Amino acid sequence: MNEIKIFSPATVANVACGFDVLGFCLDSVGDDMVIRKTDKKGIHITKIEGFDLPFEAELNVAGVSALAMYNAIDVDFGFEIEIYKNIKPGSGIGSSAASAVGSVFGMNELIGRPFNKTQLTEFAIKGEALASKCEHADNLAPALFGGFTLVKSISPLKILEIPSPNDLYATIIHPQIEIKTSESRAVLPKEVLLSNAIAQWANLGSLVHALHTSDYDLISDSLNDIIVEPYRSTLIPHFNNVKKAAIENGALGAGISGSGPSIFSLSKSEQTALKVKNAMNDIYSKTGIKFEIHVSKINTEGVKII
Amino acid sequence: MNEIKIFSPATVANVACGFDVLGFCLDSVGDDMVIRKTDKKGIHITKIEGFDLPFEAELNVAGVSALAMYNAIDVDFGFEIEIYKNIKPGSGIGSSAASAVGSVFGMNELIGRPFNKTQLTEFAIKGEALASKCEHADNLAPALFGGFTLVKSISPLKILEIPSPNDLYATIIHPQIEIKTSESRAVLPKEVLLSNAIAQWANLGSLVHALHTSDYDLISDSLNDIIVEPYRSTLIPHFNNVKKAAIENGALGAGISGSGPSIFSLSKSEQTALKVKNAMNDIYSKTGIKFEIHVSKINTEGVKII
Repeated sequence: MNEIKIFSPATVANVACGFDVLGFCLDSVGDDMVIRKTDKKGIHITKIEGFDLPFEAELNVAGVSALAMYNAIDVDFGFEIEIYKNIKPGSGIGSSAASAVGSVFGMNELIGRPFNKTQLTEFAIKGEALASKCEHADNLAPALFGGFTLVKSISPLKILEIPSPNDLYATIIHPQIEIKTSESRAVLPKEVLLSNAIAQWANLGSLVHALHTSDYDLISDSLNDIIVEPYRSTLIPHFNNVKKAAIENGALGAGISGSGPSIFSLSKSEQTALKVKNAMNDIYSKTGIKFEIHVSKINTEGVKII
Repeated sequence: MNEIKIFSPATVANVACGFDVLGFCLDSVGDDMVIRKTDKKGIHITKIEGFDLPFEAELNVAGVSALAMYNAIDVDFGFEIEIYKNIKPGSGIGSSAASAVGSVFGMNELIGRPFNKTQLTEFAIKGEALASKCEHADNLAPALFGGFTLVKSISPLKILEIPSPNDLYATIIHPQIEIKTSESRAVLPKEVLLSNAIAQWANLGSLVHALHTSDYDLISDSLNDIIVEPYRSTLIPHFNNVKKAAIENGALGAGISGSGPSIFSLSKSEQTALKVKNAMNDIYSKTGIKFEIHVSKINTEGVKII
C-alpha cells in the first residue's frame, strides 16, 4: 500500500466539567487527507484545499507532527500529504488536532502500524503545539481513539478511553467569529476557589461514572463548568441564550467547545439533537453573525481509512 | 421487631484525589449499636461504652441524627439507643459518621424502612454537622451505602455508588494524637492554582474510571493529592515516611484519611495490605506515639444488622 485516504474527525474538548482533560469525537465533521509514500525523502505537503495554510512542513500542523514521526523512523522514502480541510482553524472543534492526527495516523498505516495510538498522540502533540503554543492532547486523544477520552497526564502521556452511551448525540454551533487563543487564555484566572474546584471535580467524577453506567440524567446533572465558562462565555456572542435554548429543547447540557467560539450540546437522541439544532439556528439567524451547525453521533472509532 | 443490633462501620473520606467528595467503607473497624423501640416518646441514649460522650440526645451525634429522623415521622413511641463505640472520636476514620448513620439506619429498620439510603443520609448529615460544624457526607455515604461513594452534591444530596474491585484492601494507621478540626481546616488555602486543580480532577476522573474497570495500576497512578495533602500532612507526624514505606511495600497508594491523623493505604491483596501494616508498625513503633493499625477489605455492604 503506497497511498491512503483518511478521515480525520473534529472533536470537542473540555466538555464542561472536564477542562483540559476530557474530549469526545464527532463523525459528521472532519478533514479528509491523502498520505502517499514517495521516493523523495522527507515530508512534503503537496495540496491544501479548503483553507489557506502553509505548505512548508515545518510551519504546518500536519507537517510538524509528520516530521516528529518521520524523525523517529528510519526509512529510505518520504511522504506526501494532501489536506482537504473542512474544519475551520480557530473554530474550537479541534481543527489543528485533526490535521496533526491525520498525518501520523496515515503514515503509521502505510508503514505497517509500528506505533500504538498513545505513541501517535505523542507525535501529534508536536503539531498541536505549533497551533496552540502549548502541548496538550484533549482534542488529539478523542480524534485518535474515538469516543470520550480523558487525558490523565501529558508527561508521561496517559490517555483513558471512557465508554459512551449509544444514543448520545452532539449539536455544535460554530459562530464564524475569531477569538484569539491568547485572549481566551488571558481571561482565565491563575487561581480558583477551592470550593469551586471541589464542585468541578465532583462533576467530572460524576460524569465519568455516568458515561460508564449510561446514566443520561446524571450526564445532564454533571455537565456544569463553574471554573472556565463564567470567564470564556463572555467572549462568545449569545452564549447564554444558546445554552438556555439547547437545554429548554431537551439537551442534556451545553457548554463551550474547546476554547470556543463553538458551543456544544449533548442530547439523548438524534431527534432531540436536531431539535436543539433548530433552536440554535433560530437564535443565531437573528444576529447577523455567520454560523454553521453540526449534528453528530459520538464517533467511537476516531480517525479512519476511507 | 422491637430491638435491633447493628454494626456501623468506619470509613475513609477524601481518598487522596477525591477531597470532600469520595469515600470508602471498612469492615474490620466500626461501632456496635442497639436501637430499641420504647413506649416513652423521644430519643433516649441509655448506654455509651468505649468513649466518654454526652447522653443528651441534642448533644450527641447519634442523638441529633435520630432526632432529625424522629421529627420527620409520626409515631406514638420512642427509641432507646445504646452505643458501643470502638472508633475513637477525632481519628479521621469517620467516628461521628458511624454514630450518625447507626441510629437512623437502626430506627429505619425498626419502622419498616420508609426511608431510602439517601434520605437516611439527609438525617445523618444533621448529626455529622454537630461534630464537624458543617454539613458534609463524605464519611456518611460510604457508611450507609458501602463500597466507594462519590458525593456529587450536598444540596440537592446526590450520592453515587462507584464499584470497587474485589481484591482491594485498606491498611490504616491511626496515630493517637489529636488534630483539632479547626486546625486541619485552617491550614487549607481558600484558593488553589488552576493548574493544580486540573491535575486533581484528572486524577479523580481517572480513579473513578479505574474503579469501574478494576484497573489496579491506574488506581495506583490516580491516588495523588496535590491540593490538600501538602498542607495537612505537616500536621501528621512521620506522614511522609509512612506513605513512602507503604508504597515501597507494595501499596497502590497512600494518603490522609479524612482530615487525619489517620493515614490510609490501598493494596491489591490482603497479603500486601498486611505487609504494609508491618511496615507502618516498624516506623511508628520507634516514635513513642501510641497507634493502632487496621487492615480491612473494602466493605461493600455498609452499615448492617448483626
